[in-house]
Amino acid sequence: MAAIYERVALIGLGLIASSMSHAMRAKGLAAEITGHARSAETRRIAAEIGLCDRVYETAAEAVQGADLVVLCVPVGAMGEVAAEIAPHLRPGATLTDVGSVKQAVIEAVGPHVPEGVHFIPGHPLAGTEHSGPRSGFATLFENRWCLLVPVEGTAPEAVARLRRLWEEMGSNVEEMDAAHHDLVLAVTSHTPHLIAYTMVGVADDLRRVTDSEVIKYSAAGFRDFTRIAASDPTMWRDVFLTNKEATLEILGRFTEELFALQRAIRTGDGAHLHEYFTRTRAIRRGIIEAGQDTAAPDFGRIKVGS
Amino acid sequence: MAAIYERVALIGLGLIASSMSHAMRAKGLAAEITGHARSAETRRIAAEIGLCDRVYETAAEAVQGADLVVLCVPVGAMGEVAAEIAPHLRPGATLTDVGSVKQAVIEAVGPHVPEGVHFIPGHPLAGTEHSGPRSGFATLFENRWCLLVPVEGTAPEAVARLRRLWEEMGSNVEEMDAAHHDLVLAVTSHTPHLIAYTMVGVADDLRRVTDSEVIKYSAAGFRDFTRIAASDPTMWRDVFLTNKEATLEILGRFTEELFALQRAIRTGDGAHLHEYFTRTRAIRRGIIEAGQDTAAPDFGRIKVGS
Repeated sequence: MAAIYERVALIGLGLIASSMSHAMRAKGLAAEITGHARSAETRRIAAEIGLCDRVYETAAEAVQGADLVVLCVPVGAMGEVAAEIAPHLRPGATLTDVGSVKQAVIEAVGPHVPEGVHFIPGHPLAGTEHSGPRSGFATLFENRWCLLVPVEGTAPEAVARLRRLWEEMGSNVEEMDAAHHDLVLAVTSHTPHLIAYTMVGVADDLRRVTDSEVIKYSAAGFRDFTRIAASDPTMWRDVFLTNKEATLEILGRFTEELFALQRAIRTGDGAHLHEYFTRTRAIRRGIIEAGQDTAAPDFGRIKVGS
Repeated sequence: MAAIYERVALIGLGLIASSMSHAMRAKGLAAEITGHARSAETRRIAAEIGLCDRVYETAAEAVQGADLVVLCVPVGAMGEVAAEIAPHLRPGATLTDVGSVKQAVIEAVGPHVPEGVHFIPGHPLAGTEHSGPRSGFATLFENRWCLLVPVEGTAPEAVARLRRLWEEMGSNVEEMDAAHHDLVLAVTSHTPHLIAYTMVGVADDLRRVTDSEVIKYSAAGFRDFTRIAASDPTMWRDVFLTNKEATLEILGRFTEELFALQRAIRTGDGAHLHEYFTRTRAIRRGIIEAGQDTAAPDFGRIKVGS
């Protein structure tokens, strides 16, 4: 497979960047990979495990001569990084990102993008609850969606090239408008994460139910929440701060629904509850049929031995 | 292995009953298994797949001569079943259940239990999102907790015998007071289920985000909720109606926390969010260390091929 890009610069070297490195290497999609992370320890590990051909102490050095630059830092840091690298971007290079919100990234990064550089914000809908340079793996993006949000006027060939990279890493690519992206993700990701964080926080907080009981009896349903509530705190802080409107809107709908169910419980309205729960069962079926989760019971979860 | 019980009567033949049948058969824990389900179709399937040596059209017939009777019907139906079978229970038999709430079961069933029958309410903390006689399997209870809530004055030998059955099916057994059980389960199971149902219901309800987008992009976090929101609507309706006080209490704490996080988002209080999310990450670690979930990323979820 001929490389799609000559030199890919990964700025930030966590789960997504390290997975991109593994995937690109596995399929020969990049002739060279350079990288930068803010922490010396991360840079050291990245070099040790061979995520990049060269790791740099600054982002500015890392992007020199790159025809693709991928911002893999928390969304709150992207503006600062964009300001630093802008003068060093090669004409004709593509600048993209993997952040979970898009309007805020466009607002923070867009003003710094020089003439002649293709700015194509992106968002791979893939991840695990782990973090850091050792957490990545080549198959993370397989059969996942990657959303591209090209700004108006972007050269179609540049978009097609970036699309091809994600497709070769195994993803299905869809283009979308930034505002719509942020709303869809508020529903399918951001608010669910906030809800999970809250449920776990409440359990953690209760005095009359001991920590050990909460943990011991977590297989009763609670533990499914704990996985996404173990997600990276920095990344998620930035997601909520930068996708504020859409998150608050979905949260508002959520609390309306929750109070309606609460009232049904208080008043003993079994019919309302039964109808509601029957409706939600169908969504699960739809997800499995769309190939977005396994039909194996309990997620095909690996059973932990006694 | 010598059988622990001579004749086990399973009343209700869904996921739990069918799994108990498979587990007992695999280890020779019951010399005979009889069964009853309300629906003729369920009785037919149970006979077809050999869940019981004999399947009866009435619960009263099924419990004749049984030394262990297990109520595996929805909690809301237990009182009626108890009234029907009470005159037919063999002296010295043990009557137990597998319901997800305990105070309501004791209130509904207790008054019907004849002198000389050991009433030992129980609750195996195990399950999948599937239902019905075909959904069970022998290893469901392995390394899971089973909570026993013996009423005061119950003969210790009867409790020890039931404990041994659950231990042979692979569970860790713990005895607990009924009110405490209902509170602990409100935290670790009931409220999380309600939250999951609500999140999925909200997503289902949104007009500006299409169903197909919610489904397509569900791997972004949402899909973890959909599994438990696919749980049996009848069972869960009864759980909420019968564990009302504890559920409403935990729900109240949940909404307090949620509004605090909502305010932090609205006011841009990143420090509050970061601190909160850091705390919840530790709970996940505790669950894995307690052997209650796999450390494999993404639950070691089976990847669905493209």
